[in-house]
Parts: sequence; structure tokens; C-alpha cells
Amino acid sequence: MSATHSAEQSERPGRIMSGEMAEQPAVLRRILERGAPLIHETALRIAARAPRFVLLTARGSSDNAALYAKYLLEIQLGLPCGLTSMSTTTAYGARPDLRDVLVITVSQSGGSPDLVASTRAARESGAITLAVTNNPDSPLAAVSEFHVDVLAGPEKALPATKTYTASLLALYLFVAGLRGEDGAAAAGALPDRAEQVLARQDEIRRLASRYRFAERMVITSRGYGYPTAKEAALKLMETSYIPALSYSGADLLHGPLAMVDNISPVIAVVPDGKGGEALQPVLDRLRGRGADLVVVGPAAQVEAASGGFVLPTEGVPEDLQPILEILPLQLLAYEVTIARGQDPDAPRALAKVTETH
Amino acid sequence: MSATHSAEQSERPGRIMSGEMAEQPAVLRRILERGAPLIHETALRIAARAPRFVLLTARGSSDNAALYAKYLLEIQLGLPCGLTSMSTTTAYGARPDLRDVLVITVSQSGGSPDLVASTRAARESGAITLAVTNNPDSPLAAVSEFHVDVLAGPEKALPATKTYTASLLALYLFVAGLRGEDGAAAAGALPDRAEQVLARQDEIRRLASRYRFAERMVITSRGYGYPTAKEAALKLMETSYIPALSYSGADLLHGPLAMVDNISPVIAVVPDGKGGEALQPVLDRLRGRGADLVVVGPAAQVEAASGGFVLPTEGVPEDLQPILEILPLQLLAYEVTIARGQDPDAPRALAKVTETH
Repeated sequence: MSATHSAEQSERPGRIMSGEMAEQPAVLRRILERGAPLIHETALRIAARAPRFVLLTARGSSDNAALYAKYLLEIQLGLPCGLTSMSTTTAYGARPDLRDVLVITVSQSGGSPDLVASTRAARESGAITLAVTNNPDSPLAAVSEFHVDVLAGPEKALPATKTYTASLLALYLFVAGLRGEDGAAAAGALPDRAEQVLARQDEIRRLASRYRFAERMVITSRGYGYPTAKEAALKLMETSYIPALSYSGADLLHGPLAMVDNISPVIAVVPDGKGGEALQPVLDRLRGRGADLVVVGPAAQVEAASGGFVLPTEGVPEDLQPILEILPLQLLAYEVTIARGQDPDAPRALAKVTETH
Repeated sequence: MSATHSAEQSERPGRIMSGEMAEQPAVLRRILERGAPLIHETALRIAARAPRFVLLTARGSSDNAALYAKYLLEIQLGLPCGLTSMSTTTAYGARPDLRDVLVITVSQSGGSPDLVASTRAARESGAITLAVTNNPDSPLAAVSEFHVDVLAGPEKALPATKTYTASLLALYLFVAGLRGEDGAAAAGALPDRAEQVLARQDEIRRLASRYRFAERMVITSRGYGYPTAKEAALKLMETSYIPALSYSGADLLHGPLAMVDNISPVIAVVPDGKGGEALQPVLDRLRGRGADLVVVGPAAQVEAASGGFVLPTEGVPEDLQPILEILPLQLLAYEVTIARGQDPDAPRALAKVTETH
């Protein structure tokens, strides 16, 4: 994907990222219609092998999608999970005993050499291997026993947007399938809701002006919303270059809170559900410190904050809200970057397929 | 510990943290002499139960110690590991199947309610539970089947220093014990080396002046050094309030590198071994971008950088180097904070025992 990238650069900065963000409702519909039956079948075949432990392997945005899957698997299936420390295999040659272990590797390109090497090694060590990628012809899909295609279509902007939400939905459907359930029904409202959110770009543009001169940002959440906080921080950093630090609400209280004063911008992703309830004491502490608190979440939480974006979560269970939560934050990264006169399509120093070994 | 804290505040800022950092060689000696036999015995009893997976549960500095243990366990024992997402249990009530799973909870105070609740739930779900704490009388030690005392003595400064290095050494000895080996012999050189490093505070003071006006920092490493990068970032943030972002070298290339320009301060922790070799392409990329690169590591790496601190690693295997690597970075956090006229002993907004639920 990367070779032709610069030739396709627009005269208008951000045209590519903007177009790919706008495709998301259509991608979600495509996964629900075309992808869901295949994902369900793959999940049933893996469930029959009765994995007892899950390792998730990924980098960048895909690592945040993997973290979302970790919450689903632990909460809904009681499967203990770990995120792979890849260098244990690629640098130190560890060969763990992976019998009864499901190794899920998430990568939009399916091309990063260390992910391919780590997945191959896992399969040789007895793991059930599943690749979740946007490229069924990728080396990663080839070395994995099972493959889920996230069906997002080619992604050309460097910041991942539609492949991120597509990976979340594919992983949601996969975990529902492991439980023998049809996740597509529960997720049916998502494409329309995503469309509603993306139509409110003007609101986000106004919010973005707040961060025109921000020199740092803290993004926090808890539970199912925590991967969203991490992904939002990554998006903001790789497009606008604002140092954006993400913490689970509980971790924020263990040290980094010292960094937050009465002018520090904090964004809280507040899930409408148990994650949001668990975040409440953190929100209270942040308000107590006079932080500039902007909330993405339910109306009541936005009203109690310095500002925010009300998420339309009616009919969307908490475990699916991350697919909506990230949308206004993708738009925010885009708008802040445009306002700063930079091009969100092509952040300096980055290549689309990162060749880490 | 926290109640009497403010009464003991010194007239000289940082007196408490300074004293506790200086105790580290003595603490390491104490663990090797008094702690090692007990840790070895505990490890043998747990090895006899043949755990197949390990979950590590911790927050803050202890979470970085837990990550160090993850590398040891995966590389040296081939045991797949995961870091616990605590809210899955405490907020969502997940009850995973933890038979054959060793759950290691690391906490200096052993008092955080969510850690106690999560460990109790793990034990009820069939896990072998091990508490690694600085307080054998803590609620955490009480709910765990096994307990390792890190023997650091009372820690009164808010930033954890001696309990961090003590936890690393205790975890190292524990993992060596799981392999049936006597780790104390391999670690014998550490207390003297730690003394040598701590005696070079003047060098660090000069290095600290470089960061007098830094508005952000990036800290990177790979393999065994990665937990050091995370702990150094936490130390800098909670004392000096500089937003310090830590990434594994590979993750840095997947996005955050865009943030690094020719004036961005970057600190690289370069292990003398395979982790350092795996980091080399990242160091080259950083130099290529003209980053202000300061290295903690071998002499040749420091010479090739903008500055740094040469670590005396002769006779210290790579897997033990993290216990030395963090020392100059603790001193750096201290000196930067003093230079900025703040008190490292008592960062604003923090309490010693963090009551997260």
C-alpha cells in the first residue's frame, strides 16, 4: 500500500483520511452483512478446540483493537488473556509452551515482519493461530491457521481509522461466535449511529479550537472505553504531534495525576455502563483539581464537564460503544491537525507498513 | 504509611526520596542475604504445582516490576503471561477459569482495595496466588496463598524507588527459583554496582540541566529494558510533572515517532545484550531525525549519542541490568525536580496508598 502513497497525496491536506473516516458506516454494514457469517463459522471451529488462554499480538492501532478483544474475552468468556511482548520471541528466541493457547494477531496490513515471525513461532509452539487483518493475501494470513478479513478496503492515509473500527467489530463478532451467539443482531444499530456521529463534524471543529495551542493532553477511560483512550492518544500524536498520554482512570491516580493541573487538558471517554461508573471517582478527582475536562459520553457527563461530545448510545450495549466512541476522537485528531496547518494524511517519519523486526 | 507523611516533610525538599534512593544497595544486599532462601523455597513449592500460565496484577511502579517479571517468565520459562486488566473483575465481575494459572500481585503497600479484591477473586477461581509486597502484614499478603516480602523497609517518599528495585530483585530470584536455580549467585555483583552508580549523582545533576525547560520527553527501550523506560517515565511525571511518554522501540516506529523532531528530548535505555541489539534500528532512526538522544547503557552507545550515562554492566547479565538501569533515571527525576524548585518527596495530588476500587 505504501509505494503509491505519495503520488496520491491530495492538494487538500487530509482528503484521504477524511474520506476513509467517512467510509466507516459502510464498512460496518459490509462486515455485518458479508463478514459476519464467515467470522461466526471461524469462531465455532476455534471454540471446538476449547482454548484455555488467549495471547493477543499487535502493534500501534491494532494493539488497541487487541486490547478491546482482551476485555471481551475476559469478561464474557472468562478466558485469561495476555498481550504479547513480541521481543521475547523475536529478540530472545523464547519458545513458550502454547498448547491450549489461542494466539490472535491483529494487523491491518498483515505485513509487519515481526508479527509474521512471532505468529509462525506461536503456531510451531502448538498455538491455535488466528490472523485478523485487512489483507487476506498477506504473509500474516498465510502463516496463521485461521484468518478473519476485516473488509475495510484499501486504507491509504497513514493514520488508521476505518481499519480500526472494522477490527473492533470483527473481533466483537468473533468473541460473540465463541460464545455461540450471533453478534450481528446486537450490533445492528451501529452503522446508523456511526453515520449520525460523523455528521456532527462541525461540533468537533469547534471543540478542536480548544486544543489549538495545547502542549500536552491526557486521555483517560476505564473498562471497555480504555482501548478508545489509547487509540485516541495515538491518533492525536501521530497526526498533530501533541504529546497525548493515555491512562486507565485507576492508573492515572497512581502517579500521573500529579501532572494534571488547572490548565491541563483532559479528555475522558465515559462508557454508558459499568466502565463509566468505575470512572466516576476519577472524574470527581479531575474536577476537584480544576482540570479542563472534556467528555465523550452520555449527556449528563458532558454537561458536568467543561465541554464534550454527547454519544448516541441508545440501543448500543456498553461492549459495542468503543466502535462509536473513537469516531469523534478521530475527527478531533483530524481537525486539530488541520487547524495547526499540518497534513493528517502523511505525518512526518511514518510509513504505512512498519518494518519492525 | 501516608498518615504521618506530611509531619515528616523535611525543610530540605527531596530529603526523604534522596535517603531512600541511597538505601538501595543495602536493600539489595538484605534481599540476597536474608530474602533469597525464603524466596527460593516459595518458588519450589509453586513450581511443584506446575502452573501453565501466569497473570501479573499491579499498578503504578509495581506494574513496571510486573512487566519485568513477564519478560523473565516468558523468556526463561516459556510460560505465557498476561497483565491483568483489573476492571474486568472489579467493575464487570468477570470470573475467569484460573486453574493452572499463577496470579502474581505486586504492590509495595499491599493495601490497594482493588488489588486485594482482584487477588481474592483469582484465588476463588482456582489460581495459585502469590503476593509480592513490602508489607507482610498487609491485606494483600493475607488473601494470597503465597507471599514474598521484598524487605525494602518503610518507604515514605511518594515516588517509589527502593521498593521498585527490591521488587525487581525479588521477582528475579523467584523466577530463578522456579527454574530450580540459585539466582542469588548471579545477582551477587549488584549491590556494589548499584553503589557505584549512585555515587555518580554529580554526572546526573549535569545531565538534568538539559531538561530544565523540557516540555515533553520520550523514553524508549526494548526487551528487558522496556520496563525501565516505563518506570523512568512514571518517575519523571510524578515528580517533575514533565509529560514523559514511554514506548518500546518497535511501538515508537508505529506512530509516536511522528512526534519526535530535531529538538525533542529522547532517552534510550540500551541493554547490553539482545534487547540493545534489537533497539539499534530505532536508535538509528532517532539519530536520523536529529533527536536529542541521551543513552543509559554501554559506553559505545553513549558516545554515539548526544549524551548519556555509562552503566557499569561488567559481570551483570542482561536480565539483571534493569535493577541498575533505573538508578540514574531515578536520580534524574529527582535532580530535574529539584532544579525546577519542586519537592520530589510530595508530588501534588498523590497519596502513598492509592485507594482505587
